[in-house]
Amino acid sequence: MDEKIAKQVLEDVSGAVGLEEGTEGIRKILRFVCRFEPVPLHDLSRAVMIPVPVVSAVRRELEKRNICSRKSGIVLTQKGKMLLQAIGIYSSKLPELRLEYSVPEWLGPVAKRFRSIQELRPAPDFTLDQSHVDSETSALRSAYLYEHDALDGRDLIFLGDDDLTSLAVCLLSSEYDLNIGTITVVDVDTRILRFILKSARSIGVEVNTIECDLRQGLPRNLEGRYDVFFTDPPYTINGLRLFASCGVQALRPISGRPVFLSFGSKSPNETIEAYKVISDNGLAVQEVIPAFNRYVGNQIHAGASNMIRCSTTDTSKSVPPSEMEFIYTASQKKGTD
Amino acid sequence: MDEKIAKQVLEDVSGAVGLEEGTEGIRKILRFVCRFEPVPLHDLSRAVMIPVPVVSAVRRELEKRNICSRKSGIVLTQKGKMLLQAIGIYSSKLPELRLEYSVPEWLGPVAKRFRSIQELRPAPDFTLDQSHVDSETSALRSAYLYEHDALDGRDLIFLGDDDLTSLAVCLLSSEYDLNIGTITVVDVDTRILRFILKSARSIGVEVNTIECDLRQGLPRNLEGRYDVFFTDPPYTINGLRLFASCGVQALRPISGRPVFLSFGSKSPNETIEAYKVISDNGLAVQEVIPAFNRYVGNQIHAGASNMIRCSTTDTSKSVPPSEMEFIYTASQKKGTD
Repeated sequence: MDEKIAKQVLEDVSGAVGLEEGTEGIRKILRFVCRFEPVPLHDLSRAVMIPVPVVSAVRRELEKRNICSRKSGIVLTQKGKMLLQAIGIYSSKLPELRLEYSVPEWLGPVAKRFRSIQELRPAPDFTLDQSHVDSETSALRSAYLYEHDALDGRDLIFLGDDDLTSLAVCLLSSEYDLNIGTITVVDVDTRILRFILKSARSIGVEVNTIECDLRQGLPRNLEGRYDVFFTDPPYTINGLRLFASCGVQALRPISGRPVFLSFGSKSPNETIEAYKVISDNGLAVQEVIPAFNRYVGNQIHAGASNMIRCSTTDTSKSVPPSEMEFIYTASQKKGTD
Repeated sequence: MDEKIAKQVLEDVSGAVGLEEGTEGIRKILRFVCRFEPVPLHDLSRAVMIPVPVVSAVRRELEKRNICSRKSGIVLTQKGKMLLQAIGIYSSKLPELRLEYSVPEWLGPVAKRFRSIQELRPAPDFTLDQSHVDSETSALRSAYLYEHDALDGRDLIFLGDDDLTSLAVCLLSSEYDLNIGTITVVDVDTRILRFILKSARSIGVEVNTIECDLRQGLPRNLEGRYDVFFTDPPYTINGLRLFASCGVQALRPISGRPVFLSFGSKSPNETIEAYKVISDNGLAVQEVIPAFNRYVGNQIHAGASNMIRCSTTDTSKSVPPSEMEFIYTASQKKGTD
């Protein structure tokens, strides 16, 4: 196949799906299939960090053009192989290079206790972009917080906590006898606050819970009172902006404090926006771990999202969004329909 | 010890050293010693990502105040332990949570061949902020490039390559029979270009070498001709700005292409600047791996630097620095003396 024709096929497929990632997104999908076929749809989605319904639409277009087919997973056809070779991609014997926090053995008890606690948790409210990370991610988050000095003697605030990360921290603290300052959870969903309060008591750790819709602003009495914030905000750029700005507002104005943002992969253009939000609020990126957070049954985010660890700076200052309407995905969709 | 007094000690030590990371930097150093004592100076520097001479100055101040002492490594004194407890830090039994690309076995041959080639390399020219990553890092970089689709059929450009990463790519390609588009290396140092040309030939891979001082601008005939760029720029923000902008200029204007920047850890305020450079040039951050790059005998960067993987976007456009004077650390020092 001619290179030009092959590139045109990528253009066509990308255009047919309206893929924000463009031809490079199609290339990424095909290259992953080429390396690891047969590939289940969900694995593919997570690997390329593009949501399942979108990858599924791409697959449909590729099948229509006889580039892919199914055989206990997605595989390349002969034509598909020729197309890839035309743009320089041959299958190789190179194994996958993986960078992953595997859950270390010593976190096992935390994950196990978390698993049993969360069985009774409230179901996710999708209108609030809620979704649950799995218990391994929760345990890992607690250890990651400890590793980056977010726990010892620190006053912590969680902005939104349907993931129950505060409880994972309580479990780690109880398991390893840690000395945490105070733990505060702010959420708009009272079901979650009640559940956290009750569960924390059963673990024997005190947690302050505060009902609050951050769209109304952070309550005055929470400003400048914490050392560290953790948030897995709504999935929109405005959601990130709102939660990050409230987080900065909640912190004591000291440079070098750790801050934790979980945020899904976005198209290159939206990613630029996300990092602009971060620097607008005077936060300095320290580490970005793709697919650190694994979600249970979440199809919106390819089942995984990035852990973005930042640090406060001398110039950290809260820059909230100019409008509060399109914070959650649902409201955004309604808005753009 | 009273918390207030303890905090004052951190302030004093930070002030005495003029530490850009402030009291949180001192806290980070002390906490690491508390967790892993006795700690050798170089390990401490790498762990907290603060340069060796600076950590050494901090140690001196801590010893002066009887907070630390030496015992086959840095340890806390009794007073040091009390000081940490006053700010909430107790030693715990929690092991270290490590996120690391360990060099997989299948990369062994690449690292080994690289090691033997680089024995004859030119010595680093410190006035050009040259320093060498170790052979494991070189091998890992080549696999990381492959993993993120920077090699198959891609036209690659290396902006500055005293690290010889291009040769590691040649070795990976020869070892695993990869199909790379073209490899181009731009450098101001002809010793390096000659060495790369000769070594690449001995590996049996073709590399284009171009002598060029990027301060004079990227040569016109290199604009818009590549798919991927890789750079380990000079250590200043302006150096990053110059090399990143030349890289963007060298690329074909297509969204979603991978870009690789190696850059040392900076103070929170300078880190904000570095990420501003990245977004100014329309690059979207995809992954940030602290201490991915390990340097041989380099004391400037705590012996390690971050791998920042980005993606091009629709808005990628080259934004060079407004002045070319203070690109290298040496010139910067001269400038500020």
